[in-house]
Amino acid sequence: MTTAEQGASSEVVHLDGHVVDSLLLAKVLDTIVDAGATYEILELQMGTTTTDPSHVRIRVSAADEAGLDALLAEVQVHGVNREDASDAEFVGAPANGVLPDGFYSTTNLATWARVDGRWIESGRPEMDCALVVVPAASSGPSTVEMVPMHRVRAGDRVVTGWRGVRVEVPSRADDAEGFGFMTSEVSSEKPKAVSLARVATSLREARQRRNAGTGGGRVLAVCGPAVVHTGAAPALARLVREGWVQLLFAGNGFATHDIESNVLGTSLGVSLGEGVLAEHGHANHLRVINEVRRFGSIAAAVEAGWLRAGVLYECVRAGVPFVLGGSVRDDGPLPDVISDTVAAADAMRAQLDGVDVAVMLATTLHAIATGNLLPAGVETYCVDINQAVVTKLADRGSHQALGIVTDVGLFVGDLSDRLCGVESEPGR
Amino acid sequence: MTTAEQGASSEVVHLDGHVVDSLLLAKVLDTIVDAGATYEILELQMGTTTTDPSHVRIRVSAADEAGLDALLAEVQVHGVNREDASDAEFVGAPANGVLPDGFYSTTNLATWARVDGRWIESGRPEMDCALVVVPAASSGPSTVEMVPMHRVRAGDRVVTGWRGVRVEVPSRADDAEGFGFMTSEVSSEKPKAVSLARVATSLREARQRRNAGTGGGRVLAVCGPAVVHTGAAPALARLVREGWVQLLFAGNGFATHDIESNVLGTSLGVSLGEGVLAEHGHANHLRVINEVRRFGSIAAAVEAGWLRAGVLYECVRAGVPFVLGGSVRDDGPLPDVISDTVAAADAMRAQLDGVDVAVMLATTLHAIATGNLLPAGVETYCVDINQAVVTKLADRGSHQALGIVTDVGLFVGDLSDRLCGVESEPGR
Amino acid sequence: MTTAEQGASSEVVHLDGHVVDSLLLAKVLDTIVDAGATYEILELQMGTTTTDPSHVRIRVSAADEAGLDALLAEVQVHGVNREDASDAEFVGAPANGVLPDGFYSTTNLATWARVDGRWIESGRPEMDCALVVVPAASSGPSTVEMVPMHRVRAGDRVVTGWRGVRVEVPSRADDAEGFGFMTSEVSSEKPKAVSLARVATSLREARQRRNAGTGGGRVLAVCGPAVVHTGAAPALARLVREGWVQLLFAGNGFATHDIESNVLGTSLGVSLGEGVLAEHGHANHLRVINEVRRFGSIAAAVEAGWLRAGVLYECVRAGVPFVLGGSVRDDGPLPDVISDTVAAADAMRAQLDGVDVAVMLATTLHAIATGNLLPAGVETYCVDINQAVVTKLADRGSHQALGIVTDVGLFVGDLSDRLCGVESEPGR
Amino acid sequence: MTTAEQGASSEVVHLDGHVVDSLLLAKVLDTIVDAGATYEILELQMGTTTTDPSHVRIRVSAADEAGLDALLAEVQVHGVNREDASDAEFVGAPANGVLPDGFYSTTNLATWARVDGRWIESGRPEMDCALVVVPAASSGPSTVEMVPMHRVRAGDRVVTGWRGVRVEVPSRADDAEGFGFMTSEVSSEKPKAVSLARVATSLREARQRRNAGTGGGRVLAVCGPAVVHTGAAPALARLVREGWVQLLFAGNGFATHDIESNVLGTSLGVSLGEGVLAEHGHANHLRVINEVRRFGSIAAAVEAGWLRAGVLYECVRAGVPFVLGGSVRDDGPLPDVISDTVAAADAMRAQLDGVDVAVMLATTLHAIATGNLLPAGVETYCVDINQAVVTKLADRGSHQALGIVTDVGLFVGDLSDRLCGVESEPGR
Repeated sequence: MTTAEQGASSEVVHLDGHVVDSLLLAKVLDTIVDAGATYEILELQMGTTTTDPSHVRIRVSAADEAGLDALLAEVQVHGVNREDASDAEFVGAPANGVLPDGFYSTTNLATWARVDGRWIESGRPEMDCALVVVPAASSGPSTVEMVPMHRVRAGDRVVTGWRGVRVEVPSRADDAEGFGFMTSEVSSEKPKAVSLARVATSLREARQRRNAGTGGGRVLAVCGPAVVHTGAAPALARLVREGWVQLLFAGNGFATHDIESNVLGTSLGVSLGEGVLAEHGHANHLRVINEVRRFGSIAAAVEAGWLRAGVLYECVRAGVPFVLGGSVRDDGPLPDVISDTVAAADAMRAQLDGVDVAVMLATTLHAIATGNLLPAGVETYCVDINQAVVTKLADRGSHQALGIVTDVGLFVGDLSDRLCGVESEPGR
Repeated sequence: MTTAEQGASSEVVHLDGHVVDSLLLAKVLDTIVDAGATYEILELQMGTTTTDPSHVRIRVSAADEAGLDALLAEVQVHGVNREDASDAEFVGAPANGVLPDGFYSTTNLATWARVDGRWIESGRPEMDCALVVVPAASSGPSTVEMVPMHRVRAGDRVVTGWRGVRVEVPSRADDAEGFGFMTSEVSSEKPKAVSLARVATSLREARQRRNAGTGGGRVLAVCGPAVVHTGAAPALARLVREGWVQLLFAGNGFATHDIESNVLGTSLGVSLGEGVLAEHGHANHLRVINEVRRFGSIAAAVEAGWLRAGVLYECVRAGVPFVLGGSVRDDGPLPDVISDTVAAADAMRAQLDGVDVAVMLATTLHAIATGNLLPAGVETYCVDINQAVVTKLADRGSHQALGIVTDVGLFVGDLSDRLCGVESEPGR
Repeated sequence: MTTAEQGASSEVVHLDGHVVDSLLLAKVLDTIVDAGATYEILELQMGTTTTDPSHVRIRVSAADEAGLDALLAEVQVHGVNREDASDAEFVGAPANGVLPDGFYSTTNLATWARVDGRWIESGRPEMDCALVVVPAASSGPSTVEMVPMHRVRAGDRVVTGWRGVRVEVPSRADDAEGFGFMTSEVSSEKPKAVSLARVATSLREARQRRNAGTGGGRVLAVCGPAVVHTGAAPALARLVREGWVQLLFAGNGFATHDIESNVLGTSLGVSLGEGVLAEHGHANHLRVINEVRRFGSIAAAVEAGWLRAGVLYECVRAGVPFVLGGSVRDDGPLPDVISDTVAAADAMRAQLDGVDVAVMLATTLHAIATGNLLPAGVETYCVDINQAVVTKLADRGSHQALGIVTDVGLFVGDLSDRLCGVESEPGR
Repeated sequence: MTTAEQGASSEVVHLDGHVVDSLLLAKVLDTIVDAGATYEILELQMGTTTTDPSHVRIRVSAADEAGLDALLAEVQVHGVNREDASDAEFVGAPANGVLPDGFYSTTNLATWARVDGRWIESGRPEMDCALVVVPAASSGPSTVEMVPMHRVRAGDRVVTGWRGVRVEVPSRADDAEGFGFMTSEVSSEKPKAVSLARVATSLREARQRRNAGTGGGRVLAVCGPAVVHTGAAPALARLVREGWVQLLFAGNGFATHDIESNVLGTSLGVSLGEGVLAEHGHANHLRVINEVRRFGSIAAAVEAGWLRAGVLYECVRAGVPFVLGGSVRDDGPLPDVISDTVAAADAMRAQLDGVDVAVMLATTLHAIATGNLLPAGVETYCVDINQAVVTKLADRGSHQALGIVTDVGLFVGDLSDRLCGVESEPGR
């Protein structure tokens, strides 16, 4: 750890909101110290009560300008802004898909760029994008967009450096129901009824927002194949059918297993001995994919009456859009799978408006992919039996993520019982 | 568990080789019983000593023809063949990328199809493909290929049903050095020096096979980002430099982190406080990707002198091919990444000739993707700190996979010390 | 791996029962090969159908006598016996708690020792004990007991060597309901409804055996603290109250948390904010222990009306015995805890008669301790969210153990719903 | 979350030191909010630079007195003290091993009790004890001791309530070398060379403190059986031999496996095929225990020349004390094992003076047991391959614990190479 007192670069930054009890200030100071830089607290107006926001001004000093810039970029994910009132600087992108030197890299926080002396809020926040200033069409004002690197076109006005950009962490006022920031550690040893109740409450509140018609309240489910393997798919299908899910992201594996478990025994004539064979039935897996390829799409397979139940069936019936992103381990794949991963991520982006609750179920790949695309304010639940996965997801800069270490096979069933009522199961 | 004695379908199958001590026979019988079917051992010529092969004939009975077919497809991955001497039946594929009803789904075992009364061995085995008979060009014989579903063209002669196909498990004679079949359970509580010695021996033997010039002995490394995060990359770079790796598969994350950890501090001027910042340095991550996009490729970045060390640098210098497969969570991606996952898998297939040792390092996605492409005879090591991942990889039908639950950060370093000698580290 | 053909020691052994499809024969041969020894199959009468037993005779050869003895001791846990019809040899124990050289070390299988030409079955089998011949009282026959090392007294007739001892694996006929041997790999990706149904069926069948009055059918629950932390305790209490549990083993942690969660809010006046505080509330933990110490025992605390609900309360009320074994990490401990671990294990042994189903819930320490004491024939379920724990438990030589990787918080609740009916929960 | 403004109990507390960047203040506020209580920051004198301490005064309000007391007990582990200048109140213990109502429950922080107007520092801090005032012998001052519940005698003057007690968190000045507080999340994806270097530095600094002769610098190793299974024991033995370890805690399993792996092949004549057999060799395990029981102790077995290598051998030779605590799963046990767990913990306590570094190696049970006994200021490393275990250990209130998720088999070997030099291994 090197101190950086003499000849060093320094900068005054500030941080506002519930930054003390939400651990944000502590994380910021910790990051500064870990990077070998130093800080001086210039001002701290502390919210005196539980509900008041705080205001902090800090001078950060690092060994050199590049180190300071990297460090301040790092802490901006926690809502730290420079004190600065100049306009944002921008440079034209040198080529399609290539950003200019020193481009500003976005966080998933609400972001403003200052253009011609006015602060303009960007479109939907997304991590790791460029900030592009789009000039006014005619007499109107300029707009600011977050654009992923591959979609930048030569000449786009890309914000560079730090000037004229500020971010804001979601306010605690949004959190009246106690969703809170993710401060407790992730552990399997938590009361599961509490976690269940919390997710159920989120989904009920989202329904209220949808009913209010203000554009929010869409619930996104992100699903891995273990949803099917552990037996959670029928309960999830019911949640879709009864209107608790508005958007679904998954991959070829989930979709194929979901379809396979619903068409086997009917069209393909195989009697499952308690599902034991199905797990390894690679041939069946391929046959199902081949059939859907023959139909041309999952929707066509539903329309033809070949696929008559399951999560994707309910999505098709209920008009719930789904995006299936390709992966290099896919068999087939199903015709609905977008095998180009860059195009798949774009297709996911195109569906995110209005999503303010996301439930990740037993998937690492698609959960991280989705987490990268979501604004910080989206209430996110990561449900997985593997604590390391949940920690990883919860740590990726999301401000409102809750990790739940549990068995998705039982969790989704209990969630469905809670939201849709216990179904009578005569034979069980 | 239903018995299926009356009116049921039955079939006589046989199984040859080291099927008793390698657990194969037991797995086959277990699968039959689990599926609710029954068996009768008609003949068992047991190898009387440790080195003799056995021969078993079994009558398998299931409730109906479809169930029997599914079950026999299932057990064929263990080397079970029907007794049958007819020619293979084939049907033209109905459309590009669509297989005919009842297509034969391949295992990763050496496979023969009987065409015009002659048994023809297929090209490189791969799981979950179609078996396509390619008619003789002129006077020559027909050939048989394993073709993934998406590459089948309309009219291709696709083998259907079971007739005229047989498979063979790798023989134990190949296993003189005790690599053995994967029989021991996966656990973190194993002597790690033994695992290290075993991998080192495999790599040394592969080197001997390469030197013998008989076409084999290529070593494939499959790498996840944790190779870089845990500090294993310099040791892996050394293994590449000194000729212990002939092929590398990875994704955008591994490649970016590898490059980032080697160019930071030089071109980007950031002093790393023991790498702590780098882990979360999203901005740096993006800057590195952007620079390589500007160069146009990793090789171009090496040629320009911008990238001067690391695993991919050594690959470029040593002419070791690498395939970077895309994933839906990628930033950028790097220009070398094949973002279309179907094309990426094809690019991986194109490099596999001569590969007979594969070492998977801290990656689930790419390890499973690669495992799906490899013939059963490839010695495969799955190294990961997460036991669930290792079990999953080791269970996917590979006959020669060894799971090693350990810390890749220390394992690769120790492996490099063992193969390349301990490097003096003055400062440590 | 050394061959051991010349000048080596060899021995003929045999193995009977469902040894092929249950993987037993394969495991035996695998162990022989792994130990560097060799085998020759002398005879194999294979059960020709699913239900017939097999008979195998094998000559095993090792480099020396000591190695052979060690190897044969190793494989006897799979039911391998030497061909031998001599009487057992025994030697007086040299001192209290010390066994003679070459003592026979027991498995958890049904075991017979030959005394005066007659095969005498030992008392309840237990792993890792000595086999002690107890001379006939007067005219009656001798008996044979399994005695743990610390309970052997000087002069006890301890069986040494291999002669005159044979074991028997539980027969598959006992397994009509498909409990089966533990052949499938442990994984979190299993249909959870199937696991739930299986445990429920075991408990229902145990109830039938209890009602039949033949001495069996007692169900043992072994509990870790996470049963309370995850919220499973009320459901477990209900299972105890409604007669599904006949014996409970746990430690100080489980007992304290169970009591604490039931007396807080009443006697100690603390309002729990959804249990969040309780988790770390060390002071409350200590206060609860101190109160019970004041009462003198848990039963006294129940009698005094201080403890009015919970798992242990229900045990006291229903007369279900419980054994609380001490651990070096205990606070207090509670007065019921047997802090001497040797005495605790003896107290557990004293309760095991009639136990034929054991359910281990989220505990490593007590589950392994209990597993060491149980005969092979006890149906054992290991429920834990950590796959490594489940694998470890399932691997300890139990012939009838099923590992279930799931969240005990949800699993026990669902099990209770299934066995006792869904309770109406007005407020949830 | 209930607010507690009217008619509620409230109290002013303060917190001093590096409480902002070390997350302590944030954790305190978070705990208050989670408990449904509220706070008001009355005063915050923030250390303006990285090295200055801060001073915070907070009014905490809860719904009732009992809730407030529980909450303040909870947050005292973070160094929060009430503002209060009265003497401590004490009450005589009502019986041996029973504390009076309202007893003060200790933290692991340095603690003072005010007696007759003077603040007296207690003896070695330990969590979850009683604070007992021991009256002056004659003219001297009173002393204050932390006494575990079971060792309190009737009439002992036990501090009750909150008055006259204060605690202090370890100062950051002790942390010049950057050991730091445990702020980074636990993950397997960390650079392992950094972790290794950090532990090596701690051990070197401890050696300097020992050499300085000021009473500190003793290093405690706490070991689980996996240290032997993974092959780390020879490296650990070397560390003991070369003076890097001054105290060792373990259980029967570690000790037996350590001895077994060193006497097999010599006295018992078994040739190990790379240790594969040994892992399951229950009989050997028992034979080793029996032999040591015959000798009477491990030291006697060393003296007799029967035990000639290994960790415990080196401990005996170097005069390094070891405590083996019993567990309910023990076979035997070895005569050195203290089977009474309460006595075992007392034996551990008796050895802790001067210990300021603790390294926990692959053990959950003994690591938690030890962690409960250690003062907050002890630098503690928890090394385990299971992230959940490491998180659990690191979370138990220790202020200076660092979790390292890695393979102990490789880690200890590399640590030994680093501290003792690389040993030439001709044959490897």
